[in-house]
Amino acid sequence: MRTRLAALLLGISAMPAYSDEGMWLLNDPPRQRLKEKYNFDLTDEWLERARLASIRFNNGGSGAFVSANGLIVTNHHIAADALQKLSSLERDLFRDGFYAKSSADELKCPDLELNVLQSIEEVTDQVNAAVKPEMKPAEAFAARRAAMAEVEKASLDKTGLRSDVVTLYQGGAYHLYRYKKYTDVRLVFAPEEAIASFGGDVDNFEFPRFGLDVSFFRAYEADKPVAAKHWFKWSAEGARDGDLVFVTGNPGTTNRLETLDKLKHRRDITLPFTLARIRAMEAALIQYGERGPENKRRATTDLHRYANSRKAFSGQYQGLLDPKVMEMKVAAHNELAEDQILRKPGSERHKKAFDAADRRIAEIQKVYATFEKPYNLVETGTAFPSTLFTIARHIVRMTKEVGKPNGDRLREYRDSNLESLKFELFSPAPIYPDLERVKLLTGITFLAEQMGGNDTLVRFTLDGLSPAGLVDDLLTTKLADPAERKRLVEGGIIAVEDSTDPMIMLARRIDRHARELRKRFETEVEEPERQAYAEIAKVRFAVLGKSIPPDATFTLRLAYGVVKGYEAEGQKVPFATTFAGLYERAEAQRHKEPFTLPKRWLDGKGKLDLSTPYNFAATSDTIGGNSGSPVLNRAGEFVGINFDRNRFGLVRNFVYTEEQARHISVHSKGILEALRKLYDCPGLVKELTGAD
Amino acid sequence: MRTRLAALLLGISAMPAYSDEGMWLLNDPPRQRLKEKYNFDLTDEWLERARLASIRFNNGGSGAFVSANGLIVTNHHIAADALQKLSSLERDLFRDGFYAKSSADELKCPDLELNVLQSIEEVTDQVNAAVKPEMKPAEAFAARRAAMAEVEKASLDKTGLRSDVVTLYQGGAYHLYRYKKYTDVRLVFAPEEAIASFGGDVDNFEFPRFGLDVSFFRAYEADKPVAAKHWFKWSAEGARDGDLVFVTGNPGTTNRLETLDKLKHRRDITLPFTLARIRAMEAALIQYGERGPENKRRATTDLHRYANSRKAFSGQYQGLLDPKVMEMKVAAHNELAEDQILRKPGSERHKKAFDAADRRIAEIQKVYATFEKPYNLVETGTAFPSTLFTIARHIVRMTKEVGKPNGDRLREYRDSNLESLKFELFSPAPIYPDLERVKLLTGITFLAEQMGGNDTLVRFTLDGLSPAGLVDDLLTTKLADPAERKRLVEGGIIAVEDSTDPMIMLARRIDRHARELRKRFETEVEEPERQAYAEIAKVRFAVLGKSIPPDATFTLRLAYGVVKGYEAEGQKVPFATTFAGLYERAEAQRHKEPFTLPKRWLDGKGKLDLSTPYNFAATSDTIGGNSGSPVLNRAGEFVGINFDRNRFGLVRNFVYTEEQARHISVHSKGILEALRKLYDCPGLVKELTGAD
Repeated sequence: MRTRLAALLLGISAMPAYSDEGMWLLNDPPRQRLKEKYNFDLTDEWLERARLASIRFNNGGSGAFVSANGLIVTNHHIAADALQKLSSLERDLFRDGFYAKSSADELKCPDLELNVLQSIEEVTDQVNAAVKPEMKPAEAFAARRAAMAEVEKASLDKTGLRSDVVTLYQGGAYHLYRYKKYTDVRLVFAPEEAIASFGGDVDNFEFPRFGLDVSFFRAYEADKPVAAKHWFKWSAEGARDGDLVFVTGNPGTTNRLETLDKLKHRRDITLPFTLARIRAMEAALIQYGERGPENKRRATTDLHRYANSRKAFSGQYQGLLDPKVMEMKVAAHNELAEDQILRKPGSERHKKAFDAADRRIAEIQKVYATFEKPYNLVETGTAFPSTLFTIARHIVRMTKEVGKPNGDRLREYRDSNLESLKFELFSPAPIYPDLERVKLLTGITFLAEQMGGNDTLVRFTLDGLSPAGLVDDLLTTKLADPAERKRLVEGGIIAVEDSTDPMIMLARRIDRHARELRKRFETEVEEPERQAYAEIAKVRFAVLGKSIPPDATFTLRLAYGVVKGYEAEGQKVPFATTFAGLYERAEAQRHKEPFTLPKRWLDGKGKLDLSTPYNFAATSDTIGGNSGSPVLNRAGEFVGINFDRNRFGLVRNFVYTEEQARHISVHSKGILEALRKLYDCPGLVKELTGAD
Repeated sequence: MRTRLAALLLGISAMPAYSDEGMWLLNDPPRQRLKEKYNFDLTDEWLERARLASIRFNNGGSGAFVSANGLIVTNHHIAADALQKLSSLERDLFRDGFYAKSSADELKCPDLELNVLQSIEEVTDQVNAAVKPEMKPAEAFAARRAAMAEVEKASLDKTGLRSDVVTLYQGGAYHLYRYKKYTDVRLVFAPEEAIASFGGDVDNFEFPRFGLDVSFFRAYEADKPVAAKHWFKWSAEGARDGDLVFVTGNPGTTNRLETLDKLKHRRDITLPFTLARIRAMEAALIQYGERGPENKRRATTDLHRYANSRKAFSGQYQGLLDPKVMEMKVAAHNELAEDQILRKPGSERHKKAFDAADRRIAEIQKVYATFEKPYNLVETGTAFPSTLFTIARHIVRMTKEVGKPNGDRLREYRDSNLESLKFELFSPAPIYPDLERVKLLTGITFLAEQMGGNDTLVRFTLDGLSPAGLVDDLLTTKLADPAERKRLVEGGIIAVEDSTDPMIMLARRIDRHARELRKRFETEVEEPERQAYAEIAKVRFAVLGKSIPPDATFTLRLAYGVVKGYEAEGQKVPFATTFAGLYERAEAQRHKEPFTLPKRWLDGKGKLDLSTPYNFAATSDTIGGNSGSPVLNRAGEFVGINFDRNRFGLVRNFVYTEEQARHISVHSKGILEALRKLYDCPGLVKELTGAD
């Protein structure tokens, strides 16, 4: 039985010709696979447009140019952050939607940065050359960091483009990504939240699905709309059942190439901790939101974010507890370690290197387990999940770091990143003290829960106060005012040292501890893992070539698949839903939240062609970060916008399957139908279709 | 500074003459204090009525007889369990309320047991005599358990009354409580949930407050209403500002006499674990409830329970993180250890015994920390928070235990408890498989999160399946049918061993592990703690006498205090709210949930005297379990029903203060006004007032 199962599972995990697995690098695209399986020629021209018309939303999503006039489409839930920052109690764009009739009406987002990938350059040798075999981990880490910062700085100086060295294959390769940045981004159109997120948390990660999860922005330069050379033509017909489609976007994180011991560490340490933290935050935000309508408005995007994470991480966790999933991972490991390696020349050397690296990674997890929680809480900052604290820490650290040579700084303060960082740091977006209060109180209480009331970090944080007393004090900070932030940054180390702002004082008070934890992470986990994974990658490349793309890194990738329904619980689930289905679902749920339709949709039902495809499913390989990715047809036309996976896709962090797992998109035809019939936005429709 | 603070705090914690602290034993009432402070003579007659008219709701609350015809008042939230069990999608008594116009309409509750305290007998010597100094903890535990079971059995045989030996002072004393039981209890009246719990989780543990948290039952014997000899006369005027009032009810648990190390253990181990567990359950129930209206109905009482626990335990946890609270505990400890003991004859001996016991308790906590989580999860059963699992475990264990001598059994299966246990076990109350599913899945997932995916207990539980797969399997159980439960219990060990019911199999599969953990708890924590606390109690009695009542044990206690407002955030909070305030709060919250008024209240506003007192605050010492306790005036008349504390009372588990901490009650006059003007229930009003 076990052998048969393993063989069966291997059919999936070893990615034979018939699987659509893969978030492919744009400089290493799957031309041969596409040709063999779909008889599709991936041309340079097609790829170039895909690269230059696809957009990274720096706040964690994707999007695409869809007109020559710099019009950009993304998901409503990716636009949410900007919508929220543009809203107030009196004018709630997030809830009520928005349309700019003219260019003059378009609303500038306070702190939205978009990136368009211009080029990729392999820099693995440069980065690795800095690290000498005799170096201790701390030296190796510093040398590597310096090498990366230098590559980035040189590229920035030469090209003026945002330049990021990206670590691929967990340390197996380093590529330099150069981006054109857009920081003048203006809101053009958003529907009501109730239709964008129809079904809310209940329907999240489910299919059939009925969300108009779409919004439009426009990029500006020098106060003029960007003339986009590359953009995707909006397909009026959109995706059809059985079509080959492509997804170009920025998947955030996958863990498919991690070793078994790393996954067990995730299962037993990282995920339980993460879930506990998310639950604490979500609960606090729900309770805060229940206290009144304005509270609810202020909490809503945070709440959506935590609720989404909770579902995503719960799915991952359930996956790692599922013997079937673990069996797949074990089978894939054994296939490589016991079978594939041994069939190749040099197998003994490969086998030894592979096993040693695998064991080293197991050892690293044991070390990491001893300080992962405090590292996460105090250094990555989950104990202080507050905008004001984040600002305070950046001010405290940046003023210190910029005095050091570029290569010696904490990585986020490298020269090539400072502009983007300051753009965020000086954002005039509103900050709500009462929302900050509940988030800080929850985070600091969670810190105490995890570490114990007598722990050093807890005592340094609380400084003799109760959590509530501390938070009261912290909220007398002046950092809500961007001018005060600028004053401190410009005043440098001395201004910061002199500051008696309680938030600055907290950031200062715990900085030594936080930096120690960071140092431990870098030298005891990050660098040794990189080295071990680099060994594994070397073996993998030698044995399998580069037929397996690297794990996701929130950089541009190409995925492909087929528009396709599936079976679940004995029922056939068709590839697409329709507007008719939307109204049926609202009716079945008695129009109760989160199934309440906006008035426009209730009144306008008669105007719609109810058979229009609305949301659809496809097999392409996606993950969080792909939200807002354009879905393209063979001709490179926009046929839909990806916004989610179904529940069967929740284990995609670890394994790709295509029997039932699907990503979910809003259909380009459905979007047009809604815009035309329900939203009074002829200008937008014309821009998308070219027709009147 | 520290000294002054300590002295100041001691003023509170050492309970001088002016404090109203105390949940007093009815066989050791605070006559002298009441005489001195309030010039009140606590007569035997007053006490006897208080004892015999006060009721324990065995599902975790309190109540009182309020007519000679067996009419009982309690809180709506204590009635909730019965209301829910009597409801269905078609007839939702919990949401919509209920009134039985005639005796024939009164609805029998499926499994509600009420207890009325008949007598208390000191049995400390009998229980302690069984334990010899040379005994090891396991022997001592067994001997003590056997002694307690024998005392109970003998009392039951002699009196026919429910007989429970209660451990007081954490092991310092043992008293035998004898109860008259009522198991035919019928629903008479309940208001709508929206008014009973007006303000919901938002207003829970807050004051000013606006809830009609009241319901009425009637006790029956031989199918006739009980002729109650003792009952509280309903005061038409009710509580007035400044009145001395009494609360007679069953406070559940306090921890005021626990040592500092025990409290630190609670802070660093018990409470963080409990909070994480409650959050997981509450989140799962919220998400389940959002999937549709019937889901919401089914989840609602569980959800209220978890939400209430979350607020209560969060309050405790914040209290233990508050330096002011810890300072009070340290000061009280030092006062006893350094000052009071040393002032007494025999001080050296006392001091030595006290310090040794204190140290022993600290050591016990270190041991307990190594297995508290698995003990809680698998033995107390929080990993399986399911009615069906609880049934399965009782069947598996009871069939085995009843074959042993009474004194050797797990305590819940002692002869004197079997009748009550079977009453619950064979309850025909509905069980909802989908609700069981979400609770089991959450509990079992939480077990894995806490213990790790490869832990023995987790592997034994999952038995090769994923959590979802296991739960699917478990829910094919036949135990939803009471006849199947009876069949197994009657079939005894053999029927249980032969059973292939998956829930029985799970209970069997983990029983060895669960019993081992229980054994460890009993012999490494419970028994040694009892012995150590008995030492401390001896010293305390020698030094202070019995001036400090024991911690709460869900047995009848007498508390007293003054009806009184307080100041908070610079504002005066009056002693009572009015109906006018109710309508204002609903308006201010735009009538959104949980501030939605029932139609009857919206339509009937004009009929009410809006100045009628509605909810009121008093200083009496209460805790969870006191819900539903009658509040009495000097004459022993019913002036209100306790239902909550304010947020300042959340640390009452550890310290009593009376500057701001209050318990909250519904006013007897307010209840009458609502019954008369809004609810068409003349029979009930007549029974309460004696008037037409």
